[in-house]
Amino acid sequence: MARRLIFCAFTMNTVSHIYHGLWRHPRTRQLEYTDLDTWVDLAKLLERGRFDAIFLADIIGLYGDYRGGWETFVREGLQIPSNDPSVLISALAHVTEHLGLAFTSSIIQEHPFNFARRVSTLDHLSKGRICWNIVTSPVANGARNFGFDDLTEHYERYRWAQEYMQVVYKLWEGSWEDDAVLRDVKNGIHADPAKVHKINHRGERYCVEGPHLPAPSPQRTPLLAQAGSSPAGRDFAALHAEVQFLIAANPKIAKAQIEDVRSRAVAYGRRPEDVLFLQGLSFIVGSTEDEARRKEREIDEYMSTDGMLAHIGGAIGIDLGNIPWDQPIGDMQTEGVRGVLRAVAESSERRGRTVGDIARLLGKTTRIVGTPEQIADRLQDWAAAGVDGVNLMYSTTPGTFVDFINYVAPVLQGRGLMQREYSPGTLREKLFGAGPYLPERHVGRSYRYWDSRRAGRESDSKGKNG
Amino acid sequence: MARRLIFCAFTMNTVSHIYHGLWRHPRTRQLEYTDLDTWVDLAKLLERGRFDAIFLADIIGLYGDYRGGWETFVREGLQIPSNDPSVLISALAHVTEHLGLAFTSSIIQEHPFNFARRVSTLDHLSKGRICWNIVTSPVANGARNFGFDDLTEHYERYRWAQEYMQVVYKLWEGSWEDDAVLRDVKNGIHADPAKVHKINHRGERYCVEGPHLPAPSPQRTPLLAQAGSSPAGRDFAALHAEVQFLIAANPKIAKAQIEDVRSRAVAYGRRPEDVLFLQGLSFIVGSTEDEARRKEREIDEYMSTDGMLAHIGGAIGIDLGNIPWDQPIGDMQTEGVRGVLRAVAESSERRGRTVGDIARLLGKTTRIVGTPEQIADRLQDWAAAGVDGVNLMYSTTPGTFVDFINYVAPVLQGRGLMQREYSPGTLREKLFGAGPYLPERHVGRSYRYWDSRRAGRESDSKGKNG
Repeated sequence: MARRLIFCAFTMNTVSHIYHGLWRHPRTRQLEYTDLDTWVDLAKLLERGRFDAIFLADIIGLYGDYRGGWETFVREGLQIPSNDPSVLISALAHVTEHLGLAFTSSIIQEHPFNFARRVSTLDHLSKGRICWNIVTSPVANGARNFGFDDLTEHYERYRWAQEYMQVVYKLWEGSWEDDAVLRDVKNGIHADPAKVHKINHRGERYCVEGPHLPAPSPQRTPLLAQAGSSPAGRDFAALHAEVQFLIAANPKIAKAQIEDVRSRAVAYGRRPEDVLFLQGLSFIVGSTEDEARRKEREIDEYMSTDGMLAHIGGAIGIDLGNIPWDQPIGDMQTEGVRGVLRAVAESSERRGRTVGDIARLLGKTTRIVGTPEQIADRLQDWAAAGVDGVNLMYSTTPGTFVDFINYVAPVLQGRGLMQREYSPGTLREKLFGAGPYLPERHVGRSYRYWDSRRAGRESDSKGKNG
Repeated sequence: MARRLIFCAFTMNTVSHIYHGLWRHPRTRQLEYTDLDTWVDLAKLLERGRFDAIFLADIIGLYGDYRGGWETFVREGLQIPSNDPSVLISALAHVTEHLGLAFTSSIIQEHPFNFARRVSTLDHLSKGRICWNIVTSPVANGARNFGFDDLTEHYERYRWAQEYMQVVYKLWEGSWEDDAVLRDVKNGIHADPAKVHKINHRGERYCVEGPHLPAPSPQRTPLLAQAGSSPAGRDFAALHAEVQFLIAANPKIAKAQIEDVRSRAVAYGRRPEDVLFLQGLSFIVGSTEDEARRKEREIDEYMSTDGMLAHIGGAIGIDLGNIPWDQPIGDMQTEGVRGVLRAVAESSERRGRTVGDIARLLGKTTRIVGTPEQIADRLQDWAAAGVDGVNLMYSTTPGTFVDFINYVAPVLQGRGLMQREYSPGTLREKLFGAGPYLPERHVGRSYRYWDSRRAGRESDSKGKNG
């Protein structure tokens, strides 16, 4: 029996998320992103389709310049305007029962005391379905929106993130004991004060007294996700993440990254299977391959080359806007730019020679086009490389998800590659088949100072001091 | 024809909000505060009852000590555990169409860039029904949860709040022009980059580059509320607030405060009617006065004297926990404590002589007990003092609201004191009968640098510099 894959719908509270230009498509609801019904309808659809989760991406500033400025981003609706994802969640929790609710929040955008409280509240309201995608905010404008002169250096951002994690673990795991809440109406004792603790964190960037204001939520620490692929990012994921989002160009590259992160996780005392890997993929499905290719051509007509180049260039910090689209990449002056584009071209399953070709390839690299059976075959290749699931990137919304659910899901379910029914319990229980909390061997559990069963392990200094 | 009053339901995402001990009552849902259905059901009830708004209070730390510690707060469920109010709102917006959605957020708990974005998102999702209650966080533990050694001095907190307001006004009013969003599918232009502006705020506490990430929401700046009664608080309200929450001990005291704030508002170029005053009141209703008094006695049996004293003492920074309840207030050693209690006693309509008497009075001062007609009469007294509406504090929830809607509302509607149907439009339009945005004469409007109609008023320096 094949191992079933996890399916997550990747979206963002904005106009244009990944495949730029598609917002102009007549059958997408991207222009209706401010309307709560758009999100409520999508969540209901995904639960009907047995998706494991919806994942709301986020960014807290403009990407780096394109053609020397940020006009292209505004013109293309390219993640601006963008709205807060976290405040969508209670409505989605209300209209679904099982769907996981994942969202991105950066360590620079919110103080950990407030953030931990917000997450605990959402985990209560959703009965344990919250997943947090931890990011350190790679864009300079984001840093300047929060009072910094410029982006904090990459390695330093991960050091900062380590302290942020310490604070939220202390609040989620260390502040309230499991049996602190008594709800004792007869004696008028709601909670036992001896079992609620201040955290008294005094660190490099944060001083937080506590206690955590919310009582323990169903998962305490939400399911933890991360998406970094740099060495520092992989190391962070190996220590903290339970889900890692990949956008590998092919199964071979994915396999290498997965093996690297899993071996780092083992070095931290975790098990290889403690980290799940979801590969970003898009699908265009037809009843025949020809039909699928026709649909692909229609979608590509809407694709914006400017948008694709602005996004990739802005994310890696190189302005790709002033390079002629017909310029062969071999001729380019800047080694850095050439290297980036060549990597994109070579990692793709197709070959492109000019900048314009590569911009078009950007949209195709992680796209699978074909019949439901062909798509299922390709997904088995990804599964064989060690991928645990898919983070599904839409071309049109909800169109891409509707097609997947109506045509691909039944084939996958027939092969045992997709769940037919949800398992009970919290999101963590659904995905790992174990308990609602972080496993004992996860670093977050070392912050339960009050847990006497941990007494023998106190010589492990991790997490004891802020 | 009487002027109709505004009705707002005062609640908090916690166990015990105002009337402590009542969480033990068999017919209250306070123990179910983590269940989203509790809030969804309440919002639907309030909309059926034609309430103007639900107001979710908040606090970001423990009140000051009682009996030398914080144990009493935990034992009584007294605003701990407490959960984030803002993330409840999208679910409430989904199940209602007209109900205003007000919540408290402190300037110390969230960076203004992130906060402004969250509020704009909520204002979009609710189609313009958001109200923000601005607080500066008066509890020292709250300050210590956010990295400060102790509470910032009162006057300085309001200076800080002034800069916070500048930043959010720049984001809400100054960043996107009214016609920036084009949604031009044909030409592929979602928004006009020439009409989206960075704010480049550089102030004492904040540096924020911008632009605001969300496009303008239906109200842009949410309806602004405030509850301070100190001179600095009143002055702040006079400049910024559109709604002020009062907890005056009687109509005479309310009248004085209303007149003071209105005259300060006029000095800021506003009209007296630009600020609406909602008095905190509770109601116990019976078909006869005897029945109402019996219900009151039943409620008082559940009231916790410790809880009431811990709350009032913790809020004013005086530990009332070590004073014997039978001690006459005249004998008390500490002038400060005696003064506070005497003020409570004297401002009440009843008289109390001991500390215990006063604790009990705290629950009764703003309570009206009687038949629907008697309650309507008393509300007319408050209206005659200049009060524009009621912030209804519950004894049990939703019981207090159910009784009010079923028995008192019809009588009030018969007298023209309560709306029978909602007006169309945003919350601001519903309450003021004018446009969706801040009026031209409000300070927040001076941050629309892009508005050429304002060119002639640019000599007004207010808001021009960070």
